[in-house]
Amino acid sequence: MAKNSLFLLPGDGIGPEIMAEVETIIAFLNRKGLTDFSLDRGLVGGSAYDAHGVAISEADMAKALAADAVLFGAVGGPKWDGVPYDCRPEAGLLRLRKDLGLFANLRPAICYPALADASSLKRDVVEGLDILIVRELTGGVYFGEPKEIVTLENGEKRAVDTQVYTTHEIERIARVAFDLAKARNGRVSSAEKRNVMKSGVLWNQVVTKIGREEYADVKLDHILADNCAMQLVRYPKQFDVILTDNLFGDVLSDIGAMLTGSLGMLPSASLGAPDAATGKRKALYEPVHGSAPDIAGTGAANPIAMIASFGMALRYSFGLIDLAGKLDEAIARVLGKGLRTKDIAQKGEATVDTRAMGAAILAEF
Amino acid sequence: MAKNSLFLLPGDGIGPEIMAEVETIIAFLNRKGLTDFSLDRGLVGGSAYDAHGVAISEADMAKALAADAVLFGAVGGPKWDGVPYDCRPEAGLLRLRKDLGLFANLRPAICYPALADASSLKRDVVEGLDILIVRELTGGVYFGEPKEIVTLENGEKRAVDTQVYTTHEIERIARVAFDLAKARNGRVSSAEKRNVMKSGVLWNQVVTKIGREEYADVKLDHILADNCAMQLVRYPKQFDVILTDNLFGDVLSDIGAMLTGSLGMLPSASLGAPDAATGKRKALYEPVHGSAPDIAGTGAANPIAMIASFGMALRYSFGLIDLAGKLDEAIARVLGKGLRTKDIAQKGEATVDTRAMGAAILAEF
Ligand SMILES: CC(C)[C@H](C(=O)O)[C@@H](O)C(=O)O
Ligand SMILES: CC(C)[C@H](C(=O)O)[C@@H](O)C(=O)O
Repeated sequence: MAKNSLFLLPGDGIGPEIMAEVETIIAFLNRKGLTDFSLDRGLVGGSAYDAHGVAISEADMAKALAADAVLFGAVGGPKWDGVPYDCRPEAGLLRLRKDLGLFANLRPAICYPALADASSLKRDVVEGLDILIVRELTGGVYFGEPKEIVTLENGEKRAVDTQVYTTHEIERIARVAFDLAKARNGRVSSAEKRNVMKSGVLWNQVVTKIGREEYADVKLDHILADNCAMQLVRYPKQFDVILTDNLFGDVLSDIGAMLTGSLGMLPSASLGAPDAATGKRKALYEPVHGSAPDIAGTGAANPIAMIASFGMALRYSFGLIDLAGKLDEAIARVLGKGLRTKDIAQKGEATVDTRAMGAAILAEF
Repeated sequence: MAKNSLFLLPGDGIGPEIMAEVETIIAFLNRKGLTDFSLDRGLVGGSAYDAHGVAISEADMAKALAADAVLFGAVGGPKWDGVPYDCRPEAGLLRLRKDLGLFANLRPAICYPALADASSLKRDVVEGLDILIVRELTGGVYFGEPKEIVTLENGEKRAVDTQVYTTHEIERIARVAFDLAKARNGRVSSAEKRNVMKSGVLWNQVVTKIGREEYADVKLDHILADNCAMQLVRYPKQFDVILTDNLFGDVLSDIGAMLTGSLGMLPSASLGAPDAATGKRKALYEPVHGSAPDIAGTGAANPIAMIASFGMALRYSFGLIDLAGKLDEAIARVLGKGLRTKDIAQKGEATVDTRAMGAAILAEF
């Protein structure tokens, strides 16, 4: 049997430290015969810039395209604030998303019961929260052209970004959201600004049509994006699946994550379209949190979001549902036992470092 | 002495009910000789559409342009969901902003101590919160061209919105934020997505330059808009003035407002550039909340945001700082006494209706 291939892009800051914990887990699973992963590693972000002068090399792009799944750590840091725009760390991530066609970004916002008190929101507002934000990831203002800064005759500058959406881009991400809602609580809230943006008008029309024609069993609501942000803060449990565009998804999913008090715990999956022949989707898995350069190298990083991202890979790319479930349970158990990295500890609680947290999760297997 | 002219646009939903309370207060102040306002009234939003088939008539636009200040209630409601795009209720507000040149939108997010428990956030996270969001209001994706939906050859539709910012648009809103910060705690946080948007790159550069060259005494930070949303939820007291563009400002100011538990209490001001000859700014004042069609006509509307918006008019358009202060104190006192409209009542607390709240505030004068 052909091995399943994983391409690891740890990136910058705490990326390599949290990825190391995943590597340990993969080695264990392979040894036990539970998985049969072949691993390769590459550079992305600032670390790629330092080595190759670009945010990701062509060789690593080719490997990402060939792999069954990409595990991505995090990119960026003050060290690269001054690099040319096209080489900034984020450009590596954006190119991966675009060239792999990863149009569907799944961002669960789950409040781990053991951590409800770590939220800035009242316990009853977030306890048991389990919502999923489905964000369009390869369109909108992130990639639309023109995207430029020009100098005008009077010496002023004029910057332009372009938000573009076509019918099929909206249809395919809507289907992802509706399909996921069917396996959850059967509700989709579609967020846009149709009162101001033409892309919001089209978004609203297309989502309505797909909902009516293909998912009569899913309850669809439309909500203005600004109100959605408000409602996430006011009463987040009203939502099941939130469907939204690239830019609103960026902001709304960060709010969702922060509500839970579990930012260092939250994974995400970015998926492409199923291949016509094989049915396989290109996929990239990454934590919702960033590269946290301020704590890199201190052992304070929480590896759980990265480990849970690997769990999503087991589930979505390799169909290893049971194993993914075991990994999630292992995480819940170490939390239940009171293990805390610094980011999720309450005042006075003892903390463990990145390695100890990774090892504790492994020990639950 | 020429009277000061106020043009009232109550709008839809609860708009007329909350505006009526302001009218009562103005009549009282005029009678006492504390002010000398001449009032005129017009239609905007759905009510203008019902009367004239447009979101605001040319006659009312002319009156808005001629007035010293506009007081605006709220627009919109399900009744007008199906009207042509250019006539939708919001179009009236957007035209007012654009044609009056109201580029500077000031949205305070204040947590009234008496209401800290009404927030979904923990009391210590929001108690005493006092931040100001300065939102650019006449540029960006709200007004950039092209803004259209076209049908492609293959029958698909393609929607485009365009985010545009020029140097001077950013400079003038930055100066407003820096000036306001000087009179507060001397800190500006400028939020954009420079890692993805060229308009964010230009925004960052121009704000940095204005800060360095003209406001060396104000502390300037730059924050990515998605992180800003997160930080507002995590620890909002870290901010003093947040400076941001039209679209991010729409979302971030709604988050800010919702944090406080005082959404029904928060006013806003939208200001134009000072006239070269008279130094006067065009101005519109409106509550942060919407038209709440579900409670219109029930007496449940909270008039405080509308009354406080009139307070901002006293302060910013007419220099009546003492009187504005008295109005703010009156509001704080009725809250201190325990008066609550439904939106700000805790479970079990007695409530008063719109009129009783307005009358109680007036009685404090
Ligand atoms: C790093 C950045 C380009 C990225 C984005 O804006 O999409 C990040 O904020 C995210 O949400 O994944
Ligand atoms: C009504 C709508 C057009 C408006 C906006 O998007 O600016 C509103 O949400 C606001 O924030 O004032």
